[in-house]
Amino acid sequence: MPSLIHFTLDPFSRRLRLSLAEYGVPVELIDEEPWGPSPDIFELNPAGTVPVYLEDASTPLCGIEAIGEYLEETKSSRVALIPGDVFERAEVRRLTGWFDSKFYAEVSEPVVTEKVIRRFLRRDKGGGGPDTSRVRQAMTRLRDHLDYIAHLTDHRAWLAGDELSLADLAAAAHISAVDYFGDVPWTDYPAAKSWYQRMKSRPSFRPLLADTVRGMAPGPHYADLDF
Amino acid sequence: MPSLIHFTLDPFSRRLRLSLAEYGVPVELIDEEPWGPSPDIFELNPAGTVPVYLEDASTPLCGIEAIGEYLEETKSSRVALIPGDVFERAEVRRLTGWFDSKFYAEVSEPVVTEKVIRRFLRRDKGGGGPDTSRVRQAMTRLRDHLDYIAHLTDHRAWLAGDELSLADLAAAAHISAVDYFGDVPWTDYPAAKSWYQRMKSRPSFRPLLADTVRGMAPGPHYADLDF
Repeated sequence: MPSLIHFTLDPFSRRLRLSLAEYGVPVELIDEEPWGPSPDIFELNPAGTVPVYLEDASTPLCGIEAIGEYLEETKSSRVALIPGDVFERAEVRRLTGWFDSKFYAEVSEPVVTEKVIRRFLRRDKGGGGPDTSRVRQAMTRLRDHLDYIAHLTDHRAWLAGDELSLADLAAAAHISAVDYFGDVPWTDYPAAKSWYQRMKSRPSFRPLLADTVRGMAPGPHYADLDF
Repeated sequence: MPSLIHFTLDPFSRRLRLSLAEYGVPVELIDEEPWGPSPDIFELNPAGTVPVYLEDASTPLCGIEAIGEYLEETKSSRVALIPGDVFERAEVRRLTGWFDSKFYAEVSEPVVTEKVIRRFLRRDKGGGGPDTSRVRQAMTRLRDHLDYIAHLTDHRAWLAGDELSLADLAAAAHISAVDYFGDVPWTDYPAAKSWYQRMKSRPSFRPLLADTVRGMAPGPHYADLDF
């Protein structure tokens, strides 16, 4: 069985778990914690980061774009996650990149780093209490992204077009890492909420809703389909 | 003719100019300056960033991964920039992602922001003198990346394998934006230098070597093939 070296709240790992489930590929999960990298992670991925996808023991794949495109090239006979003509595919990739670069830098990276990673890091590696001003700023930017999601779903069935795509999985993966802490102001964004509700209701999402990080219970509505 | 909205020293714009030249696609360049976005840039790209590629006036494409994959899907009949089998293609995309995420965050973004963009930005938008500690830190990280390039070219003809690929273009594009300022310690990294020399000698690279940013002449060896 293929395996995925992942960290529970890492948005990129979460997206791959969603993608693999949508493609119908069972996978064995191997936990990795960013504050205590396992000795061989740098051999598997010179960047030292998760996720790492192992189709088999001899071929570790890393880099979110590389794994995403690899899965689409090899597993999409039943379900395509980068569907459509060349322009529709470009739109899927544009939005996937939007969440992986912009949302990650502005929202999910600061939230996960400040609320989780810093807490477990050794003090001499940057550990300690969260930088609350970084978190506050992330919460402000989150509102712009929720507006953008509402705008997109106003015109389209799914974020990138008529079909569910990698863009929805990437967006939901990033947002879910923030939603774990109950930090998403859903009541102010009903259209974004309704899209996220559809995402949360998919069978591929169920395992993510059962996740917990040691010593940090999720917010009360994290696993609720009716939040 | 297709057109490309770009900024001279933006590494992503530079990579697309290299890619288009390697594919043999002529393109009209339209200048955009990050410190003074043109009024319609947000209509073309909601992220407000360059590059934007226009195959024709009606279909702006944005997002570096989206444009890169679009060009490979539509222009690679003569020359493929993501060549090989699924694993070789994954390696091209892993390294392209390495330079677009890691090298950009650690080196090319701080250098271009501090040395150029901040200088032209209005003071109330963050303009002013460069943050020299950010630049110094970028110079330290640059050495790790030159080591990595040397390590890769020790085992391979090009960065991702036996053939020139998007990974070489991405790496060279990011490095060239730093090399503009004469900031790359080439003499300490002969193997990386020899790879960059090969890149610089390609006809696709020539237009980049003629670039200048207003009021900032390039370093004395920037355009030199024998540096």
